[in-house]
Amino acid sequence: MTQPYDRGTPVAVRAPRGTALTARSWQTEAPLRMLMNNLDPEVAERPDDLVVYGGTGRAARDWPSYHAIVRSLTDLREDETLLVQSGRPVGVLRTHEWAPRVLIANSNLVGDWATWPEHRRLEQLGLTMYGQMTAGSWIYIGTQGILQGTYETFAAVAAKRFGGTLAGTLTLTGGCGGMGGAQPLAVTLNGGACLVVDVDPARLERRVGTRYLDVVAGSLDEGVELALAARRDRRALSVGVVGNCADVVPELLRRGVEVDVVTDQTSAHDPLSYLPSGVTLEEWAALAQEDPDGFTERARESMARHVEAMVGFQDAGAEVFDYGNSIRDEARQAGYGRAFDFPGFVPAYIRPLFAEGKGPFRWAALSGDPRDIAVTDRAVLDLFPENDHLGRWIRAAQDRVAYQGLPARICWLGHGERDVAGLRFNELVAAGDVAAPIAIGRDHLDSGSVASPYRETEAMADGSDAIADWPLLNALVNTASGATWVSLHHGGGVGMGRSIHAGQVSVADGTELAAQKLARVLANDPATGVLRHVDAGYDDAVAAAARGGLRVPMREGA
Amino acid sequence: MTQPYDRGTPVAVRAPRGTALTARSWQTEAPLRMLMNNLDPEVAERPDDLVVYGGTGRAARDWPSYHAIVRSLTDLREDETLLVQSGRPVGVLRTHEWAPRVLIANSNLVGDWATWPEHRRLEQLGLTMYGQMTAGSWIYIGTQGILQGTYETFAAVAAKRFGGTLAGTLTLTGGCGGMGGAQPLAVTLNGGACLVVDVDPARLERRVGTRYLDVVAGSLDEGVELALAARRDRRALSVGVVGNCADVVPELLRRGVEVDVVTDQTSAHDPLSYLPSGVTLEEWAALAQEDPDGFTERARESMARHVEAMVGFQDAGAEVFDYGNSIRDEARQAGYGRAFDFPGFVPAYIRPLFAEGKGPFRWAALSGDPRDIAVTDRAVLDLFPENDHLGRWIRAAQDRVAYQGLPARICWLGHGERDVAGLRFNELVAAGDVAAPIAIGRDHLDSGSVASPYRETEAMADGSDAIADWPLLNALVNTASGATWVSLHHGGGVGMGRSIHAGQVSVADGTELAAQKLARVLANDPATGVLRHVDAGYDDAVAAAARGGLRVPMREGA
Ligand SMILES: NC(=O)c1ccc[n+]([C@@H]2O[C@H](COP(=O)([O-])OP(=O)(O)OC[C@H]3O[C@@H](n4cnc5c(N)ncnc54)[C@H](O)[C@@H]3O)[C@@H](O)[C@H]2O)c1
Ligand SMILES: NC(=O)c1ccc[n+]([C@@H]2O[C@H](COP(=O)([O-])OP(=O)(O)OC[C@H]3O[C@@H](n4cnc5c(N)ncnc54)[C@H](O)[C@@H]3O)[C@@H](O)[C@H]2O)c1
Repeated sequence: MTQPYDRGTPVAVRAPRGTALTARSWQTEAPLRMLMNNLDPEVAERPDDLVVYGGTGRAARDWPSYHAIVRSLTDLREDETLLVQSGRPVGVLRTHEWAPRVLIANSNLVGDWATWPEHRRLEQLGLTMYGQMTAGSWIYIGTQGILQGTYETFAAVAAKRFGGTLAGTLTLTGGCGGMGGAQPLAVTLNGGACLVVDVDPARLERRVGTRYLDVVAGSLDEGVELALAARRDRRALSVGVVGNCADVVPELLRRGVEVDVVTDQTSAHDPLSYLPSGVTLEEWAALAQEDPDGFTERARESMARHVEAMVGFQDAGAEVFDYGNSIRDEARQAGYGRAFDFPGFVPAYIRPLFAEGKGPFRWAALSGDPRDIAVTDRAVLDLFPENDHLGRWIRAAQDRVAYQGLPARICWLGHGERDVAGLRFNELVAAGDVAAPIAIGRDHLDSGSVASPYRETEAMADGSDAIADWPLLNALVNTASGATWVSLHHGGGVGMGRSIHAGQVSVADGTELAAQKLARVLANDPATGVLRHVDAGYDDAVAAAARGGLRVPMREGA
Repeated sequence: MTQPYDRGTPVAVRAPRGTALTARSWQTEAPLRMLMNNLDPEVAERPDDLVVYGGTGRAARDWPSYHAIVRSLTDLREDETLLVQSGRPVGVLRTHEWAPRVLIANSNLVGDWATWPEHRRLEQLGLTMYGQMTAGSWIYIGTQGILQGTYETFAAVAAKRFGGTLAGTLTLTGGCGGMGGAQPLAVTLNGGACLVVDVDPARLERRVGTRYLDVVAGSLDEGVELALAARRDRRALSVGVVGNCADVVPELLRRGVEVDVVTDQTSAHDPLSYLPSGVTLEEWAALAQEDPDGFTERARESMARHVEAMVGFQDAGAEVFDYGNSIRDEARQAGYGRAFDFPGFVPAYIRPLFAEGKGPFRWAALSGDPRDIAVTDRAVLDLFPENDHLGRWIRAAQDRVAYQGLPARICWLGHGERDVAGLRFNELVAAGDVAAPIAIGRDHLDSGSVASPYRETEAMADGSDAIADWPLLNALVNTASGATWVSLHHGGGVGMGRSIHAGQVSVADGTELAAQKLARVLANDPATGVLRHVDAGYDDAVAAAARGGLRVPMREGA
């Protein structure tokens, strides 16, 4: 939205493909390609502005910083580590072979200053950037990244309320951007009908282009008609409608349209990225820049109307949940009293998975060759033959997901599974069964890597929602276990002051050293999630720790 | 102050001395001894309550946690890492030889929840503890720790205003606790007279016992008389007075007492640890516990009066500074408008040292033998013969500092000096010139390890005071460089919501591996401070980076 300072001259970026190294080794080639991949026009929402997704989530602070990172990575040795501070490379230090090659801290502010105005002030001075979760940590893989999580969530909704399928139901949601664009496909993969509202027709058209959305309706009336017909016929169909959620959602409630599930993924976490009712798409950028405070106020008022209508649908019997964009807290700040009447998606559906260390495991084929992903898909299906849910997902993804940038796959795996998969991938690389090494990472939204009281750590059993020690320990232990790059971010999907989260990416380059590192990182990383839930008192986690042989000192006798 | 929940049964703790190992190796014996040393009654302010210093700064969350940490460390292998979350051990994971043996995250909260009430709520649930800076990170070494910093600060005051000596000046200050108790001796080491006010006579008597304070006066009048006489005669003398600063400081201003320097180290960062005017020492604990909100309000009102008097002394020509306890912000919150009229001590005196990576380097003799410190003192004097200032300090410390717990030394060293000293210590261990290994660490208050807009990063040249990426990068890079334990804390000396900071301790055990680790950690740790100041535009830092051969990607050509 805001154009805080001159970020330099954009260049077109696309990761190199194939097996020829640009950098000195695959351990540095991997972050190089993944950074570039994040800025590939096929992947990034606004590549010229270095924005990958989520409104303002950037891969590098500005173009000079981007070029300096590329230079540093190209030259970096196997015992050196590059430090990146909010998208700018600030130093190269001598470490050792087991150390990460890149350490990243993005958007972190001291608590009392952890606000959007302070962030924007510093951003305008060129001193920081917003890293979102996987933008500034170089492991965004396009809309597929969220698709799996969204698929899992809607599957859980179906299981909880609709007998295991969304067939015969209508889901109403907003926002068809980088993350939100996964919603229509996730609903249809679960058999349901979906009506998705976005103010920007280009966003909807783009999702049709990538087969995530079936059709864009010419009007609200047409959209509602199409969606209700699909609901009636128990057909899977997704329909996009151009409009402002603050107007459309209350309107649909007034009309009494039969909606079964309501959620939202507009960029509500950043009030400047939520278009207030009455403002046109064309006026948006200028208005947000000229008067950020006034714009924020108007956006929050609109969100209050939007959330009020969501609560109305809940009162009418629909399944309603906050999908991780902090819209409830924004509505609360505008004075709406019932904003937190519906739950966040994590306590509602995801907590039991997190307790076992399950989360969005993902990997990318550095070769650029889709066949490499086909090989890894097969390997995963072979490794976990008893996991039907996983199999269904992998096959659906193969059928329906169009790659953006480097071919990649995501699937939810837990403690005791990720290391097994990672080691198998490393063997595939060593054996030449895939053309080049594989980068293995995950979203920051994971079992033990985030503190976020309105999302991942909402409603923890022991009340420890706001405790932020865990993501820090996660980053430290991944750094101590042999990850190739590690990141620590503030804000992410829920905005400034509301979360702290960590990421890691490890490279399976087929060497024995990589195998040793993968065995540790891919066990320890989800282990912190299990331990976090053991500490909070979840029985599932205690059982998972016992199964996984995790040592919990407070449970060991004197 | 508050007794949030039952912390279990206290035991008397004292670190083992000598060369017999309790743990499997010196790399785990060291954190074990240093944890125990932090709770040694000679060191800790309230050992039964696990409080080391700074009001509520704890070494472990509770006694069961303490025992579990001890058990885990005793058994920990050379490729395992113990995770500590706010003073409780939460897991043991398999890492590798170069990884830290302990990773610690204390008191961290997500930004919007980073407040005292939320911290206390969680503490009462037994879910967190306050780690201060070196309490929860097991490298507090008694009052000597702060003495060197205080000595440096008063030396800088003398250089700036009084021709290089405090002889003939009177310094007025408050608070004679764990940190504040260093003030009288630091002033007298610089030749000056000092009047120190504390509400608790026991604190003053204790400092007389450790030779940090010369005398406790029977009354305010007597104290003033003694201090003014010393000022007149240019004699070094420190005088303690029992009283409440909120009363005594305004009273001395009204009387027009000739004071040259004014500062304060009451525990103002935590309003429940600052006694409001009109409350007796005996009523304090109960009142703070019964009504924390009301107590906070009264404490802040008193602080406003206290700070107002400090501003009055400044108006009258005195050198006045905030000594890192956040009293200005507390007074501001009570509505006092001129609270920030005087500067913090870092921008006023310490910034140029930080720009060169200089900060409070410290080490402890794990043998418990004071002769080991004598040997290291000599080594440091030999290594830096041209540094007069350093020599003066070491000799003064040898003469005046009484060890508390394990013998230890502190001196400020910068980038390019710390690794030299550390490697020399490792040689001394290898050669048997000292009886046992040496633990080498530093305060969290250091050049690149802290973000704290009211203290260490106050008034940064580029306005980046609140950016918290740097301490996180510092912790990550120390973890990646071979430190023995690494910590990440929130709050510390300035309180909740106001700072994030990191610590590291590395063990010189005489092995070649330790040498390799020390060479990296003791270079990279201060390097992050130099890089932070390069990035903020300090010329001194640019020069230090060039001297030290530090690579700054944004300054390297395309
Ligand atoms: N649940 C999760 O796991 C998760 C993960 C990451 C991000 N998020 C959050 O989801 C939200 C969406 O992320 P994104 O990457 O898709 O953002 P984005 O900026 O790419 O897309 C947001 C979309 O919302 C539309 N929009 C804005 N205001 C609107 C309004 N009033 N009415 C209708 N449409 C409007 C925009 O046109 C845009 O297409 C963010 O808040 C993000 O932080 C959630
Ligand atoms: N400058 C630095 O480098 C630095 C470093 C660490 C801590 N600190 C800060 O310095 C402060 C003191 O730390 P400490 O470890 O000495 O704390 P402490 O709790 O051990 O001592 C505080 C002392 O203040 C006294 N006190 C409280 N209210 C008073 C009042 N109204 N009038 C007079 N005396 C009063 C107490 O009796 C106590 O002796 C803390 O706020 C701490 O965070 C500064």
